[in-house]
Amino acid sequence: MAKTEIDVICREVGLRDGIQSLKTFVPTAEKISWIRQEAAAGMPNMQVCSFVPPKLLPQFSDAAEVATAAMAIDDLWVSTLVPNLKGAEAALKIGVDEIDFMNSVSESHSLSNGRRSTDQAFAEFERVRDLRDAQPEGKRFKLAAGMATSFGCSIEGHVPQKNVLKAVERFVNAGVDEVMIADTVGYGNPRDVHQLFSQIIAEFGDTVLVGAHFHDTRGLGLANVYAALEAGCRRFDASLAGLGGCPFAPNATGNIVMEDLVFLLEGAGLDTGIDLAKLLPVREIISRNLPEEPLHGTYEKAGTPKGFPFAPAA
Amino acid sequence: MAKTEIDVICREVGLRDGIQSLKTFVPTAEKISWIRQEAAAGMPNMQVCSFVPPKLLPQFSDAAEVATAAMAIDDLWVSTLVPNLKGAEAALKIGVDEIDFMNSVSESHSLSNGRRSTDQAFAEFERVRDLRDAQPEGKRFKLAAGMATSFGCSIEGHVPQKNVLKAVERFVNAGVDEVMIADTVGYGNPRDVHQLFSQIIAEFGDTVLVGAHFHDTRGLGLANVYAALEAGCRRFDASLAGLGGCPFAPNATGNIVMEDLVFLLEGAGLDTGIDLAKLLPVREIISRNLPEEPLHGTYEKAGTPKGFPFAPAA
Repeated sequence: MAKTEIDVICREVGLRDGIQSLKTFVPTAEKISWIRQEAAAGMPNMQVCSFVPPKLLPQFSDAAEVATAAMAIDDLWVSTLVPNLKGAEAALKIGVDEIDFMNSVSESHSLSNGRRSTDQAFAEFERVRDLRDAQPEGKRFKLAAGMATSFGCSIEGHVPQKNVLKAVERFVNAGVDEVMIADTVGYGNPRDVHQLFSQIIAEFGDTVLVGAHFHDTRGLGLANVYAALEAGCRRFDASLAGLGGCPFAPNATGNIVMEDLVFLLEGAGLDTGIDLAKLLPVREIISRNLPEEPLHGTYEKAGTPKGFPFAPAA
Repeated sequence: MAKTEIDVICREVGLRDGIQSLKTFVPTAEKISWIRQEAAAGMPNMQVCSFVPPKLLPQFSDAAEVATAAMAIDDLWVSTLVPNLKGAEAALKIGVDEIDFMNSVSESHSLSNGRRSTDQAFAEFERVRDLRDAQPEGKRFKLAAGMATSFGCSIEGHVPQKNVLKAVERFVNAGVDEVMIADTVGYGNPRDVHQLFSQIIAEFGDTVLVGAHFHDTRGLGLANVYAALEAGCRRFDASLAGLGGCPFAPNATGNIVMEDLVFLLEGAGLDTGIDLAKLLPVREIISRNLPEEPLHGTYEKAGTPKGFPFAPAA
């Protein structure tokens, strides 16, 4: 179920994007603890797993169990990633709130990451949409689509904004409920982010929700958040401690750090519903289960500013 | 001398803010190598030392020698920090381009950091201004004043924007050439930054230059850069590899990372005059001389995006 009356929706993606490329299997009970503790800190939305073949990503072999436990938590909106109809059927069986369809704007990234062309991916999306539309009213999941590599791709380089707009239009016309504009490899610049989000929200914001999935690969993740925020975006992905490196850039950081994101938003006078003091201790689950992973985040190191939260712009 | 025809002026402050609290003395020859190499990478402006009593900060006992070597470099604008008239007289002897006067907006920070009230600091500033005004035309240095703790202070907490505006007005009326709005302990939020810089530039931008000195203590340094940029600021301090922790927050990062700043600005289509490929190797001087200091910076770890710089917003 969704939490209401907050200004900006943060979504924890550490349990999906954060751990998908890691060799160490995080025990199911620990994944569930993570979800429960972070939900108890006020996190409104979590992408808790990916319904993919366990042979490809053994990390998600317990997807059904994890998603089931997440759905039992009050006030938590539960989303799961799926690459295809089969994954969507598995997610539907659990009755998750939201299904996120994997999709890339860049043709090369689609072929290398999803082993299918963007046309093939779109055809698969239509099957998932038909599955949604075939459900009775109360069982209809929300259907989102990622727009991976919206700012650039390690293979193609710069991805033109007109390609992103075309891809978004195609999915909107096909009945998507939300688009997640993703800077998969940290190519985005805040000026481009502001321009692209302004255009997408102006053209499609009345029809679909528009979310942002930024990586901090080249340090601009939070600058891009602020740029998207000023363009009207109110939905942001991040991961606790910035878990999740980038497979294309060894040593580089991956997802933006949830704690720093919340600090930015709350400092800007926006209610996220999240209690930073309760959020920080959840990092311990990561250090306990993934001791080899670096824990990112400057807010945690520096501590809470005296008197925070301040009255904004006094 | 100043470089002309660039869109945004970055200033390296690692040789002052970066090393001032470090116990390890960086050898004079190495400091000079750093300045020469970074100037050769196109850095237009460097704050190369602080003219303070060597007993207080032994790191700067070679200030005169370092500043003299820096002044011999073509196309480099050389600034030095001074706390008082005595420091300004020493800097004037070398003939530096710019003298930066230490000043805090927060009364408590002024007392604890500079051991004087804000009124006493202002009176000292007037003496330095008189020194400038007493010089013949060709020997007149540019005089800047810092506005430390413009967003908050570890002692007082939040610093109200009206206090910053009042302090800026006082220095502008007294004949300062530039004000550096500083987020000394990383309390700034991009929304507040945008509001404060917009106000300062609107009220005083025709009379004085307005620069930004941000710390990345709580991860928002580059988001704050973008916010100030959009408010019209075109002068930014940073340090190579983010050198310079925060004495009030052990483990925390200090100055924003120069490499990441340049990546942000160049990616936004703004010419900094700096060659990132030549800038990165200068980090080696830091790791050689200060092996115990962490080298920050995500751009360096992740590498240059394919095809960068892109045509902006294509």
